[in-house]
Amino acid sequence: MADKVSLAAKLATFDETWVPKVVGELNGQYVKVVKCEGEYVWHHHEQEDELFYVLKGRLRILLRDREVALEAGEFFIVPRGVEHKPVADEPAEVVLFEPVTTRNTGTVDHAYTIEAAELEKI
Amino acid sequence: MADKVSLAAKLATFDETWVPKVVGELNGQYVKVVKCEGEYVWHHHEQEDELFYVLKGRLRILLRDREVALEAGEFFIVPRGVEHKPVADEPAEVVLFEPVTTRNTGTVDHAYTIEAAELEKI
Repeated sequence: MADKVSLAAKLATFDETWVPKVVGELNGQYVKVVKCEGEYVWHHHEQEDELFYVLKGRLRILLRDREVALEAGEFFIVPRGVEHKPVADEPAEVVLFEPVTTRNTGTVDHAYTIEAAELEKI
Repeated sequence: MADKVSLAAKLATFDETWVPKVVGELNGQYVKVVKCEGEYVWHHHEQEDELFYVLKGRLRILLRDREVALEAGEFFIVPRGVEHKPVADEPAEVVLFEPVTTRNTGTVDHAYTIEAAELEKI
C-alpha cells in the first residue's frame, strides 16, 4: 500500500515545466502533478478524459471555440476528443487525473511528448 | 461539456456531513466532495480503490493495523479490499476520487449508506 502523499512536497522535488510526474495510481488512473509556465501545444486524447486541477497560480485552457480560465481550487475536465491547449501566463502548479494510458501530447508528436510508459513516478 | 468547478463553491452549498456529492465525472470515475465530522463506519470496497484528498481540516483514516493522519494538501489511496474507517476530530472538507460504482459504505449497510445511483450531483 502506498504511503500518504503531500502534493506540495512532491512539487518541491522538481523544477521542470510541462513534465508530469506520477504521484498516485488507482483504478487504472494516475494522479499526476505538473508545473506549467508558458504555452503548451494543441492536442487531444482519443480515448481519455483529462482533469486539470489548479493548486497554485492560474491556468488557461484554450479550446477551439472558447477558453476556460482556472484559478487555484478550480478544476476542469476536458472530454476525450476535444482539442485543447493549456497556457500558464505565470508559473502554475497543477494536478492531473487521467487514465494510465494517457499520452501527454495526445495524438501529436512534439518536443514535450513523453510516452505514458516512460512517465517518472515520484 | 461540463463547466469548470470551484471546489470551495460546491462545498459552500451544503452542510450535511458524510454525504458525498458528485462534482465531476470522467473515465468511469467520480470526483466527489464530502464534509466530515466525527467517526465514520468501518467498511471496505471489494472492487474499488478510493482516494481521499483533504482540502480543509484534518482526516484520520484508521486501518486495521495503523492509522494515516492527513492534513490539508495530502491524499491517501485506500486499495480495494482494505478495511478503513475515516475519523474527523474537527470539521474537514475532503475530495474523493473513485469509480462511479463505489458504494459509500462498501459492503456494509449503515445509516450512512447511499447507493451509488442515488448520489446527488451538484
